Amino acid sequence: MSQVYGKVALIGLGLIASSMFWAMQRGKVAGTVLGYARSEETRDTARRIGLCDEVCDTAAEAVKDADLIVLATPVGAMARVMQDIAPHLKPGAVVIDVGSVKQTIIDEVTPHIPEGVHFVGTHPMAGTEHSGPEAGFATLFDNRWCLIVPTELSPQDATEKVETFWRALGANTERMDAEHHDLVCAVVSHIPHLIAYTMVGVADDLRRVSDQEVIKFSAAGFRDFTRIAASDPTMWRDVFLTNKDATIEMLGRFTEELFALQRAIRTGDGEQLHAYFTRTRAIRRSILEAGQDTDKPDFGRGQGEK
Amino acid sequence: MSQVYGKVALIGLGLIASSMFWAMQRGKVAGTVLGYARSEETRDTARRIGLCDEVCDTAAEAVKDADLIVLATPVGAMARVMQDIAPHLKPGAVVIDVGSVKQTIIDEVTPHIPEGVHFVGTHPMAGTEHSGPEAGFATLFDNRWCLIVPTELSPQDATEKVETFWRALGANTERMDAEHHDLVCAVVSHIPHLIAYTMVGVADDLRRVSDQEVIKFSAAGFRDFTRIAASDPTMWRDVFLTNKDATIEMLGRFTEELFALQRAIRTGDGEQLHAYFTRTRAIRRSILEAGQDTDKPDFGRGQGEK
Ligand SMILES: NC(=O)c1ccc[n+]([C@@H]2O[C@H](COP(=O)([O-])OP(=O)(O)OC[C@H]3O[C@@H](n4cnc5c(N)ncnc54)[C@H](OP(=O)(O)O)[C@@H]3O)[C@@H](O)[C@H]2O)c1
Ligand SMILES: NC(=O)c1ccc[n+]([C@@H]2O[C@H](COP(=O)([O-])OP(=O)(O)OC[C@H]3O[C@@H](n4cnc5c(N)ncnc54)[C@H](OP(=O)(O)O)[C@@H]3O)[C@@H](O)[C@H]2O)c1
Repeated sequence: MSQVYGKVALIGLGLIASSMFWAMQRGKVAGTVLGYARSEETRDTARRIGLCDEVCDTAAEAVKDADLIVLATPVGAMARVMQDIAPHLKPGAVVIDVGSVKQTIIDEVTPHIPEGVHFVGTHPMAGTEHSGPEAGFATLFDNRWCLIVPTELSPQDATEKVETFWRALGANTERMDAEHHDLVCAVVSHIPHLIAYTMVGVADDLRRVSDQEVIKFSAAGFRDFTRIAASDPTMWRDVFLTNKDATIEMLGRFTEELFALQRAIRTGDGEQLHAYFTRTRAIRRSILEAGQDTDKPDFGRGQGEK
Repeated sequence: MSQVYGKVALIGLGLIASSMFWAMQRGKVAGTVLGYARSEETRDTARRIGLCDEVCDTAAEAVKDADLIVLATPVGAMARVMQDIAPHLKPGAVVIDVGSVKQTIIDEVTPHIPEGVHFVGTHPMAGTEHSGPEAGFATLFDNRWCLIVPTELSPQDATEKVETFWRALGANTERMDAEHHDLVCAVVSHIPHLIAYTMVGVADDLRRVSDQEVIKFSAAGFRDFTRIAASDPTMWRDVFLTNKDATIEMLGRFTEELFALQRAIRTGDGEQLHAYFTRTRAIRRSILEAGQDTDKPDFGRGQGEK
């Protein structure tokens, strides 16, 4: 792989930014990578583990002369960060974000983009339930999708170079408009997370079944929900506050279906339940065929592994 | 491990029964194992792969002289099976079931148990999304819990021997009464499955997001739901029809919480969302500490594995 950008600035040094750094290093995708995070603690950790060629104490320093600036903070912090760095960007620089929503970011971030600077929305569809500067690893984006959302501030060549960049990090890219992006992500990511959080919250809150029992017997299905319900609270708060419309729309559909199944259970309508449960198997099969999951029993969770 | 029962009969030859056979074989837990399944196809498959020492063409033949009889069919079929085999059981024989619910089974099965025969409810809390005679493997129950539900037809020594049997198959055992069993399982297993089925059903049913998109981008969270939503439709239909009360009670709690979160999203109450999402992380941590899951990124789903 050869260099795509000379100087890259990472603003925010969490799971996504650190994975980007290790992937850039692996593929020699950037000349120099500068980083900045809000807290001194995170900046110190980054320096200690060699995350970034240089960790700066201000965002202004990090973005100075940068060809590519990556906004990798929680969504709610991006507009403010953009405001802070705007005066320090060089003409021709490209700003991308990696946020999990798009319309709100475009609405709130692009007004602060100075004349002569470009902006392309991006969203790597990859993550784990861990966060922070030590959570990243070089292979996080390999064979995952990165959604590319061009805006009015995205000239064709800038967008294409951003796509080249993400592919050099291991991802596949696909373009989408912001509205569709937010709807797709509500379905494949935001609602599943909200539901997982709810399920885990309910289980934690029962009087008649103890937490100890829930934990002990979690392998029977519950466990699958807890991984995504352990994701970073700040990130997810911001996602739901900024993708409100699509979330509420999809939640409406979800509760509608859940009520229909509840009714079938209450009235003893076995046929409806059987038909519903049969239909959902096909999707699983397609996901396996598309190489988006493994068919190993128990996801390959090792026996006896902790 | 040494022999626990001389002659064992497996009625139903699916995932659970076949795993029991391979685990019995591994640990030399039984003298002879006879099997029976409803369809000739399944019986032929079982004979071909060496599942059971002998596969019989009737349930009556299989249970004749058996010391232990295992009901391993879907829950809805068990009362009928019990009726059929009752006249052929020897005095002192022990019948167990492996069904995912308990109160209904006890209510419907035990009336058919003949004088002098014992019955103990059991529920191995282990499974995969696969079913049928070829889905089983010897390690399925290793370090998993098997819940033991004694009934009025369970003398102390019969119950203890059943516990010894399950431990010889690799499981840990815990006793519980039927009502509590059904409530615990509603929380850790039945509601998670219902919700996963619902989520997958919703995603499959949208006009504005295509199935192709859902499949492609499923790694963002949705995918975790699809595994359990691929489980056997007949088994799950029976579970919901026979654990109606606990399911409806828990569903009520779930929708209550979901509506509270939905309201927080609608009104922009970031604090409530953040507090909720923080609380749920603790449960995940406890599950990892209890050795009930692995902390590997992506569950150890290998990169590029199919
Ligand atoms: N995690 C995922 O699964 C995933 C997947 C795709 C996209 N995303 C998106 O990627 C972005 C980052 O997520 P992540 O998982 O990498 O988060 P993370 O691990 O929690 O890291 C967030 C980083 O942002 C920094 N930060 C927070 N507020 C800031 C501010 N006001 N100014 C400057 N830096 C600030 C934090 O610094 P401190 O450590 O000093 O607080 C931290 O370094 C989010 O927008 C998220 O929506 C996440
Ligand atoms: N799968 C799990 O995750 C899991 C976990 C714990 C407990 N359980 C419980 O274990 C039991 C079996 O589940 P499984 O996953 O092993 O199911 P499975 O793989 O679908 O196998 C069911 C077996 O029962 C046989 N059968 C169905 N109806 C019958 C009838 N009327 N008479 C005789 N045999 C009949 C089937 O025979 P044919 O092939 O000929 O139709 C098949 O061999 C269920 O009660 C379930 O609730 C399941």
